[in-house]
Amino acid sequence: MSISVGDILPDASFTKFGENGPEPIDFASLSKGKKLVIFAVPGAYTPTCSSAHMPSFVRTADDFRAKGVDEIICISVNDPFVMDAWGKDTGAHDAGIHVLADAESKFTTAIGMDFSAPPVGLLARSKRYAMVVENGKVTTLQVEESPGECTISAGESLLETL
Amino acid sequence: MSISVGDILPDASFTKFGENGPEPIDFASLSKGKKLVIFAVPGAYTPTCSSAHMPSFVRTADDFRAKGVDEIICISVNDPFVMDAWGKDTGAHDAGIHVLADAESKFTTAIGMDFSAPPVGLLARSKRYAMVVENGKVTTLQVEESPGECTISAGESLLETL
Repeated sequence: MSISVGDILPDASFTKFGENGPEPIDFASLSKGKKLVIFAVPGAYTPTCSSAHMPSFVRTADDFRAKGVDEIICISVNDPFVMDAWGKDTGAHDAGIHVLADAESKFTTAIGMDFSAPPVGLLARSKRYAMVVENGKVTTLQVEESPGECTISAGESLLETL
Repeated sequence: MSISVGDILPDASFTKFGENGPEPIDFASLSKGKKLVIFAVPGAYTPTCSSAHMPSFVRTADDFRAKGVDEIICISVNDPFVMDAWGKDTGAHDAGIHVLADAESKFTTAIGMDFSAPPVGLLARSKRYAMVVENGKVTTLQVEESPGECTISAGESLLETL
């Protein structure tokens, strides 16, 4: 079953590329008492994610902060090396967006957002969505019908809901 | 059991980023009647792969061709989108190196070269190796003891064996 508005997100551990390489990031420590924006993409370096979805949050990061959002987080089922390179290439690091690797798809699968497209090499990846999370609870959720689309999950669209 | 010198490589299908996106590449069609150099890396955008292993083959690609090698192939358990971006970034495309995605680790696992390092988000990835393959048969094989090393599997080291 997929996550819905009103649900508490499961605890999860992600990997982030730190100064000394990949390191674990505990979701609880990021979310406790905070207002988060989380968006997820099917894959770093895939066309829609690189040319539309990530840029829409790089553009709007400051607007979200002005509306009281504490942290902006991008999640993808990629390894932390790829996520770090992609975070640099897209300007996400410079915009202060946390780029977190859900390499084993544990979080993505736990919230029922996984899909696979083996002919293009995507396995247990994340559907494209954006959500607002307050103290661990989902308060807004926008899931694209197709992972290849980026409309309701784009930064500007989520921003309008706040 | 791992592949050895004298073995015939199993048939396999990889994914390569073509003009219209990811497309399947049949190993048999690449290898039949040809002399190939194949090298494999644990991951696109990981430090040793990007700074040492791939560059060593970009540097030596023409030397291999001068020694009668028909095709130079890099394999990694990544998706084709990441492999294509990495192929651009490292100069592999310009050097005429085929950058093939073994996204489901089918080939890598079939030849017994898979390993996992979950704390850094690497799952069913390929050990680092380089081989010469003639008409599908392995004639030289150099496997690093640790995937983090790049000595005997480097372009220059493999070139010396020819």
